[in-house]
Amino acid sequence: MKILAFDTSAQSASVALCEDSAVLSECQINCRLTHSQTVLPMCESVLSAVAAKLSDVELLAVSHGPGSFTGVRIGVSAVKGIAFARGLPCVGVSALEALGQNLYGLNGVVCAAMDARRDQVYTALFRVGAKGLIRLTEDSALSLSELADRLAPYMDQPVMLVGDGAEKVLQALQKPALCLAPPPLRYGRAGSVAALAAKAYRAGGDFSAKALTPRYLRLPQAERERLERLKGEKA
Amino acid sequence: MKILAFDTSAQSASVALCEDSAVLSECQINCRLTHSQTVLPMCESVLSAVAAKLSDVELLAVSHGPGSFTGVRIGVSAVKGIAFARGLPCVGVSALEALGQNLYGLNGVVCAAMDARRDQVYTALFRVGAKGLIRLTEDSALSLSELADRLAPYMDQPVMLVGDGAEKVLQALQKPALCLAPPPLRYGRAGSVAALAAKAYRAGGDFSAKALTPRYLRLPQAERERLERLKGEKA
Repeated sequence: MKILAFDTSAQSASVALCEDSAVLSECQINCRLTHSQTVLPMCESVLSAVAAKLSDVELLAVSHGPGSFTGVRIGVSAVKGIAFARGLPCVGVSALEALGQNLYGLNGVVCAAMDARRDQVYTALFRVGAKGLIRLTEDSALSLSELADRLAPYMDQPVMLVGDGAEKVLQALQKPALCLAPPPLRYGRAGSVAALAAKAYRAGGDFSAKALTPRYLRLPQAERERLERLKGEKA
Repeated sequence: MKILAFDTSAQSASVALCEDSAVLSECQINCRLTHSQTVLPMCESVLSAVAAKLSDVELLAVSHGPGSFTGVRIGVSAVKGIAFARGLPCVGVSALEALGQNLYGLNGVVCAAMDARRDQVYTALFRVGAKGLIRLTEDSALSLSELADRLAPYMDQPVMLVGDGAEKVLQALQKPALCLAPPPLRYGRAGSVAALAAKAYRAGGDFSAKALTPRYLRLPQAERERLERLKGEKA
């Protein structure tokens, strides 16, 4: 089954064409560019690089959050658009779980951490091993001190940090157990999004364009400000 | 320093644009296509993905072998051509060392193994750790039983296999110490080629297009057959 997968949940962006769990072609960028301008050209590149066409694709996959609000919206919207236009099923997966999936093949505890600004990270803990990825905690928006508490039970073993918040966590927490994942595994990879999507698709569910929605975990800044304004008016 | 890097030494191919050790954009393909058709479009993709131009590039890098004879020739020839046309310095690095470099950030022993057919692998051992990559053995073309002997002193610790010969080695040697690197680290990555090239460039040397040559380790099949014919004629 050919899967076209997208990750635009952070500053980095990645698109991949996979045949089940095998990555046929994958592109990543990691610089301050607007994903809305980069993601469709990247999509064309991964298809043409292996002489494939959009009509060969049988499943779409995207990391539907948490992460950058704009980034998540761009990825989810692009995939909803393609799914609607081509009548394809589409699967949303956790951006944090996809980061954990990058480390498939290693052994140990993984802390996925995406920079959520305001001294927070989007984070989840996983165990990787022979049985694949086992989720230890739900996706959460936590302050760095809350994350320190959550990590405390695991500090007797190496814990590998992934995500664009990895260095922030390493510097803030100063724990010898923490280490950074190798750079090629540290950022979102569409190949990992595809692997999780294939698993979710086999398990069944509603994979229509309509059912695909972002998972922000926190309210966007504009919503937060609106609620604060309303609170102020009531007081 | 912007580095444009290529790896076409195996069935997979990869092109990356890096800013020193940071990967700005990277593409990989892993399917049976002719690299001579894929590598320059991939080059265009990695540049355009980050709104860069060939004139921004200051250094070229390529894995100059060992590996597929045709693949190595294509990568080296493309880089020599660009270097000649643009007057750019170019650095060749070991394809096996670049595979080892993929695991930078982990700890332990790495066995890079590329399928060399005829029951052989191109292989080298490295130690990765806080000080980066330390080479333990030279690049060699070895039979699987010779590789087993070479690995014997390291079988008291986990040894991670990388390269397109990794699964072949795992299956043939059946040693519990051996494990496969995570899939995103298992094949040649141009980002790793760039990292090694930057280091070699800083150390100094002759980095002209003329000085860049393939490092095959073994004679190509046509040469082997010619020598065997000559031997037969003499006998």
